[in-house]
Amino acid sequence: MEMEQPDYPRIVVLGTGAVGGLYGGRLAQAGYDVTFLARSDADHLRTKGLRVESPQGDFVLANPQVASDVSQLPPADLVIVSWKATANEALAPALQSTCTPTTSVLVLQNGWDVERQAAAVVGAERVLGGCCFLCSNKIGPGHIRHLDYGTITIGEYAPTLAGQITPRLQQIVDWLRRAGIDARAVPDLRVARWKKLMWNIPFNGLSVILQADTRALMTDADTRALVEQIMREVLQLARACGSEVEESHIDKLLRDTAEMVPYASSMLLDYQNRRPMEVEAIFGNPMRAGQAVGFSPPRIATLYHQLKFLDRRQRSAVVPG
Amino acid sequence: MEMEQPDYPRIVVLGTGAVGGLYGGRLAQAGYDVTFLARSDADHLRTKGLRVESPQGDFVLANPQVASDVSQLPPADLVIVSWKATANEALAPALQSTCTPTTSVLVLQNGWDVERQAAAVVGAERVLGGCCFLCSNKIGPGHIRHLDYGTITIGEYAPTLAGQITPRLQQIVDWLRRAGIDARAVPDLRVARWKKLMWNIPFNGLSVILQADTRALMTDADTRALVEQIMREVLQLARACGSEVEESHIDKLLRDTAEMVPYASSMLLDYQNRRPMEVEAIFGNPMRAGQAVGFSPPRIATLYHQLKFLDRRQRSAVVPG
Repeated sequence: MEMEQPDYPRIVVLGTGAVGGLYGGRLAQAGYDVTFLARSDADHLRTKGLRVESPQGDFVLANPQVASDVSQLPPADLVIVSWKATANEALAPALQSTCTPTTSVLVLQNGWDVERQAAAVVGAERVLGGCCFLCSNKIGPGHIRHLDYGTITIGEYAPTLAGQITPRLQQIVDWLRRAGIDARAVPDLRVARWKKLMWNIPFNGLSVILQADTRALMTDADTRALVEQIMREVLQLARACGSEVEESHIDKLLRDTAEMVPYASSMLLDYQNRRPMEVEAIFGNPMRAGQAVGFSPPRIATLYHQLKFLDRRQRSAVVPG
Repeated sequence: MEMEQPDYPRIVVLGTGAVGGLYGGRLAQAGYDVTFLARSDADHLRTKGLRVESPQGDFVLANPQVASDVSQLPPADLVIVSWKATANEALAPALQSTCTPTTSVLVLQNGWDVERQAAAVVGAERVLGGCCFLCSNKIGPGHIRHLDYGTITIGEYAPTLAGQITPRLQQIVDWLRRAGIDARAVPDLRVARWKKLMWNIPFNGLSVILQADTRALMTDADTRALVEQIMREVLQLARACGSEVEESHIDKLLRDTAEMVPYASSMLLDYQNRRPMEVEAIFGNPMRAGQAVGFSPPRIATLYHQLKFLDRRQRSAVVPG
């Protein structure tokens, strides 16, 4: 934590989806040295650039620095992990290629304990986690549509640093803020994660199971009641796991969602496009965290098993044509 | 209970679906005086008859006695209520038309406390309930396909008669058995109802929510686990409501279902054909029975709210063409 941090860090962004494309694009546009690790999009990004539509201003990044293989990654001061947790089989080689002894790794994935795999490579004290509150979708190659919100709350992952806003954490938040990103440092990443899960678990889960967007779920009296019951169960689960989340957060989330533009969750888009869903990160890990302390959350387990069934069937189905 | 019962009763069957068509057809074929109350099928039944395919023998009832309006119903010794609980708005006028002071009413509907509406018309002590264990579908007008099983367990509904196999109950069972129907008298209808719900709640619910038949649900490890968790919750609910169901019944149901032919539940067929689903009878009534005694079943409530959403959306959707 005592190390000098550069003013213009070299940043590597893993993934160019709804999160990495938006935030990485903003960082590059602000003049930072940003390299994207892209897979299927690499050629498109190199020839046509990265296009972001956003209520805070549309922009095109004409010449992004793109690596299509981990061996092409430069050494980084900060690695932002912004692909989905389901893509993490590629995480260890990417980090091994780009990390120096002082690199920080910021994991912007959804779910519980999603930082564990990065920590296994670089050590927990080099890892931070961030929760993104945003409605953003990748709608085509190199094409991001940001719809609403955009805050990231960031905290230290290592248990030894819990409760602290370290200078390193503050520095990373400052870098992001200088690029116009509403980043906020929080002393307790676990609380931030539970608050995020309190939205993701009901809305991602029910949107896929019932094929419905946020507006449909909020305007039907039954799903509205069910969303709230699930949120209460996440609150109980957080408390069982030792994190104190205030009950009023449920009302805030319900109010915010009711005011939101109708939104198809990223998990619903994954399902509709036959991509793997983050069922383990968002449902399985929290459920098992509860079971480990003797609290088995029945509603979350019901959604988990339903989603596992749908994920398996969807991806094993023969695609016509 | 002391009244003389006729040897060849006049029987009225309300509904000519998977249950009424099969059992009513068997009773008529055995020589009983059976009148069916039919709605959309009435003309088809009068001109083409009732056709039943069954592993116990196919048959066609060429000239069934059919009433298309409650005013055409004759006085009955026994009324069998075999339409779905969702059609019960027509129950009171039908019973008022056909019941004499000695008529018995046998309710063969799925769900919890589905006898209440009949009891409100004729009095609880004239009402019996029956649970049908069968795989049977109506596959076209006047056309029933019976696939597997076929037992009916019948008990007295009135709390004052609980625990008794009354002479009247035994007589009705004998009538059915003489027609080749595997009917059995049970002293405790509530236990029989809970045992049936232990199958209906997981399989009807998940088959609709996940668009899957019994085989798909039993062969996937996640839905197999979820089915069992839901069965355990129904067991807890039954006990909370004062009925003792042995835990071994769960294993029996799982074993039986694994051996069953792949079966699309009647609720799944209702959903696919945009007919109302028996969500209140099968999910809402048991859930509220639990809540009334301080046990709120979370998995059943989750399925209930999911199904209410799907039922409402499906029936309000514009049908193309």
